[in-house]
Amino acid sequence: MSTRRNSGIICQAIGRSIFASSISLASERVSVLLQKEEEKETSCPLLFIQLNELFCAHDSLEWKQTARWIKFEEKVEDGGERWSKPHITVLSLHSLFELRMCIKKGTVLLDLEAHSFKQIVEKAMAVQTGERSLRPEVRKKLMSVLLRSPRHHTTQSHLRVVAEFSTACCRGECWLGASLALGHLGPSPGCSFVSLQQSNQFKKKIPAGAEVSNILVGEVDFLDKPFIAFIRLQKAVGLGALTEVAFPSRFVFILLGPRAKSKAYHEIGRAVATVLSDEVSSHRVAHQAEDREDLIAGIDEFLDELTVLPPGKWDPTIRIPPPKCLPSPHKRYQRARTQHAPATQHVSEELQRTGRLFGGLIKDVQRKAPWYWSDFYDALNIQCFSAILYIYLATVTNAITFGGMLGDATDNMQGVLESFLGTAIAGAVFCLFAGQPLTILSSTGPVLVFERLLFSFSKDYSLDYLEFRLWIGLWVAFFGLILVATEASYLVQYFTRFTEEGFCALISFIFIYDAIKKMLILADSFPVNWNYKINDVTLYGCICNASDTGRSAPSPQERWHCLFNHSLGLELQNWLESANWSLLTKTECLQVGGHLVGNSCNYVPDITFMAFILFLGTFLCSMMLKRFKTSHYFPTPLRKLASDFSIILAILIFCGIDSLLGLETPKLVVPSEFKPTNPQRGWVVFPFGANPWWICLASAVPAILVIILIFMDQQITAVILNRKEYRLQKGAGFHLDLFCVSLLMVFTSVTGLPWYVSATVISLAHMDSLKKESMTSAPGEQPKFLGIREQRLTGLVVFILTGVSVFLAPVLKYIPMPVLYGVFLYMGVAALSSLQFLDRIQLLLMPAKHQPDFIYLRHVPLRRVHLFTLIQMLCLAALWVLKSTVAAIIFPVMLLALVGIRKAMECIFSRQDLSWLDDIMPEKDRKEEEENKRGKSCVLQMWLCGSGRHSSCCGGQGPSLLTCWRSILMESKALDAIPQDTGISKLGKCGLD
Amino acid sequence: MSTRRNSGIICQAIGRSIFASSISLASERVSVLLQKEEEKETSCPLLFIQLNELFCAHDSLEWKQTARWIKFEEKVEDGGERWSKPHITVLSLHSLFELRMCIKKGTVLLDLEAHSFKQIVEKAMAVQTGERSLRPEVRKKLMSVLLRSPRHHTTQSHLRVVAEFSTACCRGECWLGASLALGHLGPSPGCSFVSLQQSNQFKKKIPAGAEVSNILVGEVDFLDKPFIAFIRLQKAVGLGALTEVAFPSRFVFILLGPRAKSKAYHEIGRAVATVLSDEVSSHRVAHQAEDREDLIAGIDEFLDELTVLPPGKWDPTIRIPPPKCLPSPHKRYQRARTQHAPATQHVSEELQRTGRLFGGLIKDVQRKAPWYWSDFYDALNIQCFSAILYIYLATVTNAITFGGMLGDATDNMQGVLESFLGTAIAGAVFCLFAGQPLTILSSTGPVLVFERLLFSFSKDYSLDYLEFRLWIGLWVAFFGLILVATEASYLVQYFTRFTEEGFCALISFIFIYDAIKKMLILADSFPVNWNYKINDVTLYGCICNASDTGRSAPSPQERWHCLFNHSLGLELQNWLESANWSLLTKTECLQVGGHLVGNSCNYVPDITFMAFILFLGTFLCSMMLKRFKTSHYFPTPLRKLASDFSIILAILIFCGIDSLLGLETPKLVVPSEFKPTNPQRGWVVFPFGANPWWICLASAVPAILVIILIFMDQQITAVILNRKEYRLQKGAGFHLDLFCVSLLMVFTSVTGLPWYVSATVISLAHMDSLKKESMTSAPGEQPKFLGIREQRLTGLVVFILTGVSVFLAPVLKYIPMPVLYGVFLYMGVAALSSLQFLDRIQLLLMPAKHQPDFIYLRHVPLRRVHLFTLIQMLCLAALWVLKSTVAAIIFPVMLLALVGIRKAMECIFSRQDLSWLDDIMPEKDRKEEEENKRGKSCVLQMWLCGSGRHSSCCGGQGPSLLTCWRSILMESKALDAIPQDTGISKLGKCGLD
Repeated sequence: MSTRRNSGIICQAIGRSIFASSISLASERVSVLLQKEEEKETSCPLLFIQLNELFCAHDSLEWKQTARWIKFEEKVEDGGERWSKPHITVLSLHSLFELRMCIKKGTVLLDLEAHSFKQIVEKAMAVQTGERSLRPEVRKKLMSVLLRSPRHHTTQSHLRVVAEFSTACCRGECWLGASLALGHLGPSPGCSFVSLQQSNQFKKKIPAGAEVSNILVGEVDFLDKPFIAFIRLQKAVGLGALTEVAFPSRFVFILLGPRAKSKAYHEIGRAVATVLSDEVSSHRVAHQAEDREDLIAGIDEFLDELTVLPPGKWDPTIRIPPPKCLPSPHKRYQRARTQHAPATQHVSEELQRTGRLFGGLIKDVQRKAPWYWSDFYDALNIQCFSAILYIYLATVTNAITFGGMLGDATDNMQGVLESFLGTAIAGAVFCLFAGQPLTILSSTGPVLVFERLLFSFSKDYSLDYLEFRLWIGLWVAFFGLILVATEASYLVQYFTRFTEEGFCALISFIFIYDAIKKMLILADSFPVNWNYKINDVTLYGCICNASDTGRSAPSPQERWHCLFNHSLGLELQNWLESANWSLLTKTECLQVGGHLVGNSCNYVPDITFMAFILFLGTFLCSMMLKRFKTSHYFPTPLRKLASDFSIILAILIFCGIDSLLGLETPKLVVPSEFKPTNPQRGWVVFPFGANPWWICLASAVPAILVIILIFMDQQITAVILNRKEYRLQKGAGFHLDLFCVSLLMVFTSVTGLPWYVSATVISLAHMDSLKKESMTSAPGEQPKFLGIREQRLTGLVVFILTGVSVFLAPVLKYIPMPVLYGVFLYMGVAALSSLQFLDRIQLLLMPAKHQPDFIYLRHVPLRRVHLFTLIQMLCLAALWVLKSTVAAIIFPVMLLALVGIRKAMECIFSRQDLSWLDDIMPEKDRKEEEENKRGKSCVLQMWLCGSGRHSSCCGGQGPSLLTCWRSILMESKALDAIPQDTGISKLGKCGLD
Repeated sequence: MSTRRNSGIICQAIGRSIFASSISLASERVSVLLQKEEEKETSCPLLFIQLNELFCAHDSLEWKQTARWIKFEEKVEDGGERWSKPHITVLSLHSLFELRMCIKKGTVLLDLEAHSFKQIVEKAMAVQTGERSLRPEVRKKLMSVLLRSPRHHTTQSHLRVVAEFSTACCRGECWLGASLALGHLGPSPGCSFVSLQQSNQFKKKIPAGAEVSNILVGEVDFLDKPFIAFIRLQKAVGLGALTEVAFPSRFVFILLGPRAKSKAYHEIGRAVATVLSDEVSSHRVAHQAEDREDLIAGIDEFLDELTVLPPGKWDPTIRIPPPKCLPSPHKRYQRARTQHAPATQHVSEELQRTGRLFGGLIKDVQRKAPWYWSDFYDALNIQCFSAILYIYLATVTNAITFGGMLGDATDNMQGVLESFLGTAIAGAVFCLFAGQPLTILSSTGPVLVFERLLFSFSKDYSLDYLEFRLWIGLWVAFFGLILVATEASYLVQYFTRFTEEGFCALISFIFIYDAIKKMLILADSFPVNWNYKINDVTLYGCICNASDTGRSAPSPQERWHCLFNHSLGLELQNWLESANWSLLTKTECLQVGGHLVGNSCNYVPDITFMAFILFLGTFLCSMMLKRFKTSHYFPTPLRKLASDFSIILAILIFCGIDSLLGLETPKLVVPSEFKPTNPQRGWVVFPFGANPWWICLASAVPAILVIILIFMDQQITAVILNRKEYRLQKGAGFHLDLFCVSLLMVFTSVTGLPWYVSATVISLAHMDSLKKESMTSAPGEQPKFLGIREQRLTGLVVFILTGVSVFLAPVLKYIPMPVLYGVFLYMGVAALSSLQFLDRIQLLLMPAKHQPDFIYLRHVPLRRVHLFTLIQMLCLAALWVLKSTVAAIIFPVMLLALVGIRKAMECIFSRQDLSWLDDIMPEKDRKEEEENKRGKSCVLQMWLCGSGRHSSCCGGQGPSLLTCWRSILMESKALDAIPQDTGISKLGKCGLD
């Protein structure tokens, strides 16, 4: 035992050493302790650690809290009134060695039974015997110093002032009471600090069941050598005034020493706090330690895991903010310092084939049914209200613009009202029954193109458009049901990030392009007179004229002519005639058959500028408010509210500005009467009568195109919405979604309403407005993304509102269109900015040294990254060109081509590169097996080279080995095949990192 | 010796310990070594450190560079084609212990004489005797492995590809030649890697005279224990292909060991590189070490200074970017970890009183004269070109706006042309002769107010304005000379940060306010018809009418009346008459005495919106381009250029947009004829004749007001421009500046031109556009602010250009005024953003936990900071109100009041708080002495408490002790009075930090 005791640090140094392969005694001890803990199966409570230091103020000694730890350090600033920001504790190695010495030389009392701080101190002093024994007068002084009144630093200074004022009167006996009655658990009687503690906002940050460690350090003049005690209580005890928060204390560390070393004491206090705040090696070890050696072993293990920064390259006074993510404590032991490639996409449960007819659909229903009621009560949050308003406005705008375009394309067979009605019914039904109710249904571009072609085809061949369309719709629904029955949705596994991002980027670009295009069209309808001369104000005008010659205002030549010749004959007649006409307004004039004549008729002042100001203003304001959450101004709840309601706020602000200025900007106009746009049609389409009988069979041909379109559009969006990073809890329902869409096809075809599929961008905006984040727990911890508020209510309400928009017309007419286009621009940009593709495009413009530290850049050569990006850009450009031409109808087929291109890229890029830049496509079964085999042989090979038998090849770093390595990690079965002791540990050393 | 050898780490742990006060042996050794170095007086060259590792590729072993260090670590990323960003080397403590063991157990050859790498290896192997001796076959294999071809990773991959291609043909013999002829210094003959090395862009980053450390680590299969060698060469030798850059090598570290530990070898390689890259304790120690023990002592010292991060709270894979500033190596030994309050403002040399008449002026001239020629050739930089354009446009705009306002105020006795002429002459003269030629002279607000009052006074009492003004000017000049003679400028010491920032904030706010006000005035001159109805286009019009009744266009009632009744009698007559008038343009109409009648006469379409777009566009574009320097896109020189020319680019862009659109926005119009604006005056004002004789005496009274105004305005601006943070090299000239301004007063009064003083905001913009920054040297180092391009040329050219602007009118007429107002807004915002005051205002809006880590927040309670800010805001508000009323004439007196308020604040705030938030005002001599005395007694007191004699009072932390502490640091004389050995070292421990 004694040799072990002395070998401490040196042991540590040669444990894991390149010189000797003996296992470190410290880590051996620690693992024994941890194992013991696992056997006990108790989880250690979180420790709140408080450092109190001794100061002299007003000629008497006083304990003051100077720092605290939950996860990170918070220091009381020199002013004594302010908590620093939470930061990583930066120590000097020296102070840790000093701490080690303290534990070695000081008093260690484990599992002490005590009920008050006084008892603790007494017992600690009682064991000071032999060399360490204290003289009675020193003992007395020490006691009095340790039991002196502490001063806390509470978080909310305003609250504190009030609380202090109210307790100031009785503070005297409080402290007295505290020091005498410290043993009481719970609030001590009478007026007290406990009420102060309870009111402390800070307590909210500490989870229930936490325990406290009290660290007391200071210098006194009556000691000539330090008094050190490390105490663990058998039962956590509330030490009252000693602690800032009303939690029971488990550990007490006392260090009082002679003068002139207070800096060193402070540092040791911080060191012990840091060791205790460490989750793995130390605080659990401290919890389980049986003797002094165990504690020292814990410190040694802690030392061994330290990260060190060289002097001169780092200023130790810099406070390091907590990192965004921390290594999990469980990984700490087997931590390999390299990051491994992202795991291959596992086929998610939703996409596994059952092999039975409608098996996927049944499983979808089974999966979603238990969540059904929660889908409604989960929506009870203010955030959902904002989401409803935002998505409602987007949906209505979309319905109006698509409705307008459909109306143009189909001679109003489907107009704005049909668009509203269809959107409302289809959307609401989908939200009620679909697998992924966060999806927002909408008309989409490709469907619009198809309708346009179908209508002109019908016209050319004198077919009844709606009847023809009904049959196509029925066929599409039939094909859709076949796809559901055969579980065809499992094919979406082939939609890797490459396909998803290509599609999503395209749709986002279309959104941005459309928003800008609509603004330009708007500028065309309100033309600005760029050649307006202020001096010629008297020469501008627009009059209503009856004559067909279209007489315009006099030209300058005529003007001078008139001015000097006064030839009034015919001119006079004209002027006389025009006199009355000129009193008509524009619409009146056109109604009575007049012509507008003049050089200002075609121009509208100011509106275009105002429209652009509203457009850009709404966009920028939305962006700013959204980002406001991460600004440093105002309290967090306020910022969160502003961020959640960013788009609604932006819309309201700019509607307000527009109303205030009162210019005649174009406004949102919704239909206010419930009847088909085209009076020739009714609300139900009859299947027979207008067209030849064979049309109902021939319709199957165009229906094939439509079903491809619907399938691709629907499923890619579904894949994007169900991405792992959104952390959806209630699962997807690819089959159920397609089933719903197919049935809705029947309904919309029969009623002659537009067809609907998932709208990527609006759905993403919907999810984005429903993001949940944790309220920060420990100070300094980043708020975590918790997932999405998955529910059916927001979507449902949005579509119900869309349906009743007819009655909302008086309100909606205050919303200018440019504001809504600004919202569209925002949605497009927001959807784009979430893409890795965009990051990579930005890389193209950055010199290598400025590029952010993306994980894929560490592993894939920049050239390859750029090549990948360029291929993706080319695909996107091709798709863009395609969708702009008539060929848009084969657009869905081109999406399939995207999958093919991605497949072909496996010839250009190594599997490893692709695994970093994209997901891996699922392989054929045969291939997988091969991979397995290769994996196993590789493991064997490495095992051999690890044992030194075949070392010629294992120094290499080729991708094949790395691939092996990854496949091993994934295929844990393979590991069972080789001897256990040569497993992972040796693999890590085989030239792989 | 042997005890010392074994005591290593433990010694380290107890050195400086709280348990024993013995001095660490390691640090003793190190300080001896460092002392030795100082005696030698050789400065160590910078070390470039390169880590090469052994890999097997294509079935053969190959050395590959995996990392390098200049100041910070750069790693070759896993892809093998990319350098990581420079980052702080993060090590595990373990690897440092391993390194220590390596040095202890391995071969150490110091001051080896060798001329090639082969020789080095041979000599290193030769000393492997006894236990360490190698078998001959192992020796041979080792030799062959070590001399294998290395592969470099160069920085510029494009260049490399070309270079590699051209040398590929002869690479074979190259490597061969390299390994054989490695001893040659300089480029080796024939085609070679040396040319490749030379072309390497990266070499630029390394200063001449640098030396190389080569670190080679790897695993081989023929060794059963590690082969370790640390070699220092007596003379640095170029090792050719071994090194990435063509610098000679000084250190070589070799670690080859058995298989399966490559990770450990890699970490040891990084550790040795880190130790060698450390400036103080290690690389100098390594340079001076005489034996193995010295090296180990160096490592121990390094260990002792480490900063450590606890495991679990920090992810070691995070790469820490280099901090903005690093602790200086000289401070590392005496480093106290607390920051001390900023030193009291020392009275700068420029402001010390000589006590002689004109003593300050003479010293100013003496100080500035030697720089005079450099003041011209220092301007030879492209940056100055941008500055000239920027400041020229600002000056011209200012001259026009102030000229216009002066013209209004003085009935054109001083108009725009006078303003141009005066600005040009006064500015040019000032730039040629002043003490601080970066100052830009301009008319200022208070002067304008004074002129307005003076003119109305003269009118009321029938005095000749210009003659009266001449006498005032002469008196002001006289008083000014008296102030110069008496060295009154020394009073500017009382202008602390509080006063400066108050003044600067006020002027900046006025700039912002004026820019916006001018835009609103502009909107008033181009009114928008907010009630314009698109449908009523036919009813809008504006006609020229001769009748005096001012008949307007028919109202709607009249309109309907006309339409249905056709009562043409009188109406007809009117229409007939108006027919010809209506053909006149607006100016023609007004010239012939007509009236404009109609509902569109008062409105101008589009111009206002366009103006605001130009205004905000210019402002935002300037801001964006200025910030572009810190963006990550495009190469650094391009970004720097864009940033330097940001305002000019913004102006050009928006002038371009304006020209393209062609709207009649208001443009910059400069006078194009050279004659007095008011024909009643000439170019010289005669002193007698128009006014009674006593006026020339009475003028002294208003002159007192003006001199206070001039003095305050001039000197506060001068103080702001000469702030320490601008790092001016050529010194200030407060007396000389005032002298110039006084003489110019004479000139401008005689010629009847406006009076000029320094313009704060434009001068700050001038300095800002002349900032010099270092090109980054070592990768990862922040560019340093080097100072301002101090010269006279930019200002001179600006004013010459202003003078010849009369001829530039054809070009200047393309610049719209809103663009220039945008520039003004930018200047105001830029001047504001440099103020600490603004930071503190922002703090008012931030919750404490989000506040940035300002150094004063660590030391001054937040309440006090807020109080200080609020007082400053109140002062500012008071000044603002004052300058907006007629009382503006006593404005300069109120600036003096600001100094008084600051003085009064010493009663509310502690001296320490003020020292953090503001500068300390100079005290009376008596007080200073007192302070000194107190300082000394305090030192004594602390010495006593340090030695334990009087310990009752020295635990306190009151401000008085801190003040002492600071005064001690400043008054090094005081330290001489106390015993040396109890000096600083003990003070630091006396409860002060």
